[in-house]
Amino acid sequence: MEDKAQTMSVGALENLARRALEGLGLSAADADKATSILVLADLFGITTHGVSRIPSYGERLTIGGINPKPHITIEAVAPSILMVDGDNGVGPLVGRHALDHAMEAARETGMAAAFVKGSNHFGPVSPYSWIAAEAGFASMIASNATTTIAPWGGRDARLGNNPVGFGVPGVDGRHFMLDMAISVAARAKIRRAHERGESIPEGWATDAEGLPTTDPAEALKGFLLPIGGHKGYGLALMVDLFAGLLSGASFLTHVRSWVDDPDKPQDLGHFFLLIDVKRLRKPEAHGALMDDFTGIIHATPPADPKAPVILPGEIELEKLHRQRAAGIAIDARLRRELEALAARGAS
Amino acid sequence: MEDKAQTMSVGALENLARRALEGLGLSAADADKATSILVLADLFGITTHGVSRIPSYGERLTIGGINPKPHITIEAVAPSILMVDGDNGVGPLVGRHALDHAMEAARETGMAAAFVKGSNHFGPVSPYSWIAAEAGFASMIASNATTTIAPWGGRDARLGNNPVGFGVPGVDGRHFMLDMAISVAARAKIRRAHERGESIPEGWATDAEGLPTTDPAEALKGFLLPIGGHKGYGLALMVDLFAGLLSGASFLTHVRSWVDDPDKPQDLGHFFLLIDVKRLRKPEAHGALMDDFTGIIHATPPADPKAPVILPGEIELEKLHRQRAAGIAIDARLRRELEALAARGAS
Repeated sequence: MEDKAQTMSVGALENLARRALEGLGLSAADADKATSILVLADLFGITTHGVSRIPSYGERLTIGGINPKPHITIEAVAPSILMVDGDNGVGPLVGRHALDHAMEAARETGMAAAFVKGSNHFGPVSPYSWIAAEAGFASMIASNATTTIAPWGGRDARLGNNPVGFGVPGVDGRHFMLDMAISVAARAKIRRAHERGESIPEGWATDAEGLPTTDPAEALKGFLLPIGGHKGYGLALMVDLFAGLLSGASFLTHVRSWVDDPDKPQDLGHFFLLIDVKRLRKPEAHGALMDDFTGIIHATPPADPKAPVILPGEIELEKLHRQRAAGIAIDARLRRELEALAARGAS
Repeated sequence: MEDKAQTMSVGALENLARRALEGLGLSAADADKATSILVLADLFGITTHGVSRIPSYGERLTIGGINPKPHITIEAVAPSILMVDGDNGVGPLVGRHALDHAMEAARETGMAAAFVKGSNHFGPVSPYSWIAAEAGFASMIASNATTTIAPWGGRDARLGNNPVGFGVPGVDGRHFMLDMAISVAARAKIRRAHERGESIPEGWATDAEGLPTTDPAEALKGFLLPIGGHKGYGLALMVDLFAGLLSGASFLTHVRSWVDDPDKPQDLGHFFLLIDVKRLRKPEAHGALMDDFTGIIHATPPADPKAPVILPGEIELEKLHRQRAAGIAIDARLRRELEALAARGAS
């Protein structure tokens, strides 16, 4: 059972998250970078990928699975290509570091990418897309992940449910932000159906033999199915090639599971591609195009009159605005855990 | 009814396609570029997007819908960004031109993109990915298209079934090539089910009201459904933003249909992103990683013992090798049509 949620201001939550990460051994500057991503995740309502991750990072930091004081290196192998080694730091720190440098490079040449190895779970994609969009960059950002998906037609997990996201700056913060994993449904949804004794829809998962199932118990022993069958399979491969293989990180079955080997580096890979939109046209001209684009979509007659058509990112941005004003709801037990971690640093 | 297929050597088909395009008013150099893409499509077995398109290009070239003698312009707005105006030339010509220049720019800065406006249907993506991969480039290539998809939860076609593809060079021509449209199934498949009096699977399409249907007749009046529901919807939007909006081309409902307005420019947009892989590591080291990657996937135990697990592009590359050696099967009526067009140029 969860404690009742408490509301904290953004500043107070940032402060708490930062101190908790410092309590786990991160430097103040590194804790600050990682916090920027995690608190944005909470602001977007993606609480499963926000500050709630700090205690689990903590377990791995404590047993040497993640390096609290990484020496992150950046090599510009070409004017538009950075190779980043995260030195096994916490994911949102390595990710934010790589994003900042990729934006800097893209300011010079119009477009640049950072290929990152030696990292860990970096949170959701949308906080990165949002930071990039706020700075005027369109983006494609992706990470590989521990294997949970079988190749199309196979019956062994050899691919991660690799997240990939795309962003395009909009007018007054109304950015396009697509942030998706490759599976039709998240594993958590199958677990929930199992707990409730419900069946799952066709197309969500296979059993351990790689055959379609609607039984959540069989599905939990089996594999998540990718969107569009062979198409989603192809997209998951693409993300692992760009974020994992090209970056020099681990890929496919080489990626270590943080559940099975929490004390070992995962060596995840990420990919940050940035396009400086103001090189294409003046911001006002770009803004007018974006308003036209979103206007056409919003004006679509809805199939259900009570559910107007929306664009990716709109739900998250609405939560961002609301929670910035009204504060962020944080589970009371999580808050106590973070305070306990913060107290370590102060002691 | 179709005539029996005849086999032609690659060189003979290239020669015929080139002369047919010249017969339609293209310069020899332009006909050559367009031919390179169309014949590759046929070599990959994508016959619906190969030289069979030339007669339909011809109709539009003849009535002024496509410009046979375009003055394609390229502006390097930043070291890694090219803005291309296709001047309403045939798509595979504009696409090949943009690809060549984007590869040149990517050789300088490690990574570059061409944003293309003023173009037309550019064929499938895989011929471009293949040319890029042969030259050592990883790629992301996309185009927008005439509207056939309703936004998620909407009941009006406002999005194209936008093709997007990704390529990564492999060893000895065994490149990764993912080439996909965003819909679960192609419209042609629904048409075929209708002709046979069969129903279509759930999830392929909606009726005209945006509601799910398994009746192909209703589906043909309605809209194609994107893969993964809101995820595929997001991907289709992303492609239109990158290929259409950022390039300055038409987007969404602004794209003209070549069926309804064959005599007007479509103003399609494309996006070619190239990464020079040899900047990341030595070709032998990259090749070893690719062999490891494909080996892990190929070794996956198959769900059906008779259907081994494959990677995107393998079917197309196998056809390429076979048809290069044995010749390409061309429908006899299509061959006569192309010869008639070629005769125009010679007269």
